Amino acid sequence: MLNPQRTVDELKALRELTGDENGAQRVAFTDKWLASLDFLKERLKDLPVTVETDPAGNLWATLKGESEKELLIGGHLDSVPNGGWLDGCLNVLAGLEVMRRVNEQYSGKPPVTLRLVNWADEEGARFGRSLYGSSAFSGYFDVNEMAKLKDKDGISLTDALKNVGITLADAPKAKDQVKNAAAYLELHIEQGPVLEGMDLPLGAVLGTVGVERHTITFKGQAAHSGSTPMNVRKDAFLAAGKFAQEIYHIAAKYNGVCTIGSCKTRPGIVTSVVEECEITLDQRVLDADKLAAMWQDAQDAAKKFAEEGGCTVEFGNLWNIEPIHFHPELINFVEESILEVTPTAHRLPSGPLHDAAEVARAGVPTVMIFVQSLRGISHNKIEDTKEEHIRQSVEVLDKVTDKAMSWMLGQP
Amino acid sequence: MLNPQRTVDELKALRELTGDENGAQRVAFTDKWLASLDFLKERLKDLPVTVETDPAGNLWATLKGESEKELLIGGHLDSVPNGGWLDGCLNVLAGLEVMRRVNEQYSGKPPVTLRLVNWADEEGARFGRSLYGSSAFSGYFDVNEMAKLKDKDGISLTDALKNVGITLADAPKAKDQVKNAAAYLELHIEQGPVLEGMDLPLGAVLGTVGVERHTITFKGQAAHSGSTPMNVRKDAFLAAGKFAQEIYHIAAKYNGVCTIGSCKTRPGIVTSVVEECEITLDQRVLDADKLAAMWQDAQDAAKKFAEEGGCTVEFGNLWNIEPIHFHPELINFVEESILEVTPTAHRLPSGPLHDAAEVARAGVPTVMIFVQSLRGISHNKIEDTKEEHIRQSVEVLDKVTDKAMSWMLGQP
Repeated sequence: MLNPQRTVDELKALRELTGDENGAQRVAFTDKWLASLDFLKERLKDLPVTVETDPAGNLWATLKGESEKELLIGGHLDSVPNGGWLDGCLNVLAGLEVMRRVNEQYSGKPPVTLRLVNWADEEGARFGRSLYGSSAFSGYFDVNEMAKLKDKDGISLTDALKNVGITLADAPKAKDQVKNAAAYLELHIEQGPVLEGMDLPLGAVLGTVGVERHTITFKGQAAHSGSTPMNVRKDAFLAAGKFAQEIYHIAAKYNGVCTIGSCKTRPGIVTSVVEECEITLDQRVLDADKLAAMWQDAQDAAKKFAEEGGCTVEFGNLWNIEPIHFHPELINFVEESILEVTPTAHRLPSGPLHDAAEVARAGVPTVMIFVQSLRGISHNKIEDTKEEHIRQSVEVLDKVTDKAMSWMLGQP
Repeated sequence: MLNPQRTVDELKALRELTGDENGAQRVAFTDKWLASLDFLKERLKDLPVTVETDPAGNLWATLKGESEKELLIGGHLDSVPNGGWLDGCLNVLAGLEVMRRVNEQYSGKPPVTLRLVNWADEEGARFGRSLYGSSAFSGYFDVNEMAKLKDKDGISLTDALKNVGITLADAPKAKDQVKNAAAYLELHIEQGPVLEGMDLPLGAVLGTVGVERHTITFKGQAAHSGSTPMNVRKDAFLAAGKFAQEIYHIAAKYNGVCTIGSCKTRPGIVTSVVEECEITLDQRVLDADKLAAMWQDAQDAAKKFAEEGGCTVEFGNLWNIEPIHFHPELINFVEESILEVTPTAHRLPSGPLHDAAEVARAGVPTVMIFVQSLRGISHNKIEDTKEEHIRQSVEVLDKVTDKAMSWMLGQP
């Protein structure tokens, strides 16, 4: 029988084992991360599963079923430094609990094969490249680019992997794990304030939003703060200031989010009008057309504000990714399951990326379940979720597992 | 007879001697600065003047007159690195020319004593403290504070002065030079676009504006750029952006200038809403009440924008100085003299500070003459003024000298 309280207890035990007064310390490929893997393996010993590590370092526990079709449940035990107690590991331990229930119910032989996966280095906290393990699985993984990565102490990813028995050059072979995968489920804390704001414990995730990330550099003219009348200034900061307000209108128009995260001014001295102002813009929305239009609107607005103030503007690309939509049938299952456990379900996109995005990109029908985050805060030791909500989230994952298994059997 | 073209020629000769392809290099207390002093001393040899260096390093050339009352004409040979060919040295060489004319006209014995002064380190380019020599003269000079100053190579002002034969601790004795000073004249390039915008070569300066210089720090909350809806953000950069526009309204209201010169964002990463945004604000206007009101309006606006966005705001004082008004009778003389040389005169405040501000603070009746700057640019090798305008400015200084001498004799 499913025991959601056991998941809460195991999360606390893992926190005890791998955290300190500053929060979770399970940074990928470190000793604390290895300790969390041992914690999981120890518990898997009670189940009739085969445990293996793929060439990228992802850990797989497989409960063989009647069908070769595989239902994957995944999460990540790695954390950021000084991280929260739930981010990533909730789903690994919730998946473990669901696996126990399925194993018990079907006496070790469920109708489909069930696999629990711990993705290696979801956070990218040390090498600045997130979704390492799941992108090796999806194939969106460039070994040459990866080989260039170094941590702040100058240690290469290659060496850090070697230290835990992984050969970077072999990591792309993790793609072999896709072969029989027929569905993927991931439960995660929301890491945002939406569900808490609606007073809902759980939500069905529609997909991960697409991201357009750019620099915008306004260029005006340095001029003496004392001798230059206001009406002849070419003030790059003024253009950026107008733009700071405009992104709120643009975000509202497309129901997305736009963020200016950084602003740098040159010459940046108290006695000069700003000659050059560089800001970063991060835009996200679930619809690809809206994302493109949102970025176009931003460029148009930046040009307008630059011109108004006698400035020019230049754009630089930082990073982008297309929106990834989860599977409509699986989203329905999540919604149905939430309604079996609580009175209300809500559908929402995920702003942050997750391993689920990579699995979906690999062509595997995918869905995520969000559970409420208190204060919308994560990547911080004060990250928290009510224990009642954690228990409900395990129940929902369990119900979705059943619905997905039935659905998979009916698929061609 | 006055020969204004000689001033133009001497300015060019000085440029040849102490500049390079990047502009003027007469940074105070360096070899090029010493070379410019030698250039001046060489020319003073043809006049019956006594030349002395005061304890602060200001160079004085005195042409003894019938009266002990002294008319001072001052400027500064020092420049910023890569500076312009006129900033500061124009008045030293124009004053030299006027001194030649007065000497010739009065056969070495003018009605009042005439003194040409080269102020040491007006720019403060190396130690970050402008008006060094003239503030030693005025007494607004704190030896202990000065002793703390170091250049970017860690060399102290004390040592830099010692190297050119000046003892910092003795510098305040320069105040003795105030004793018989009865008027002070300073001709300077405008360093702004006002006269050029009005197509006027010359202007009478009303005084130097007062300055309020502060940091303004908006404090919001860091939040994930993907998971945080726009309507719950506490975006410190948004508040700063609104403020960037508001300062234009505030400046217009008081006919002053307001400048945001620098903006720093924290955490300052592309994936987070800005938690803390620190800007600098520099406000200037000639009227003390307006200056106080302008700063009050800025604080009120900053608080309003902070509150609107769920942020708080803190203010920090950087520096301030009261407005300094020049002498009304001397301003009249400048205006009359300009009208004798050109068809139109304009009165305007000086946004930048000048040695004249310190001299006025010392209680000496003071005035400045501005000559048009092309493109309003200075502190740059492209700083320039039409030669015709330079010649006219020397004529005006000469006429003001005569009017001031007569006026001084009539004063108690």
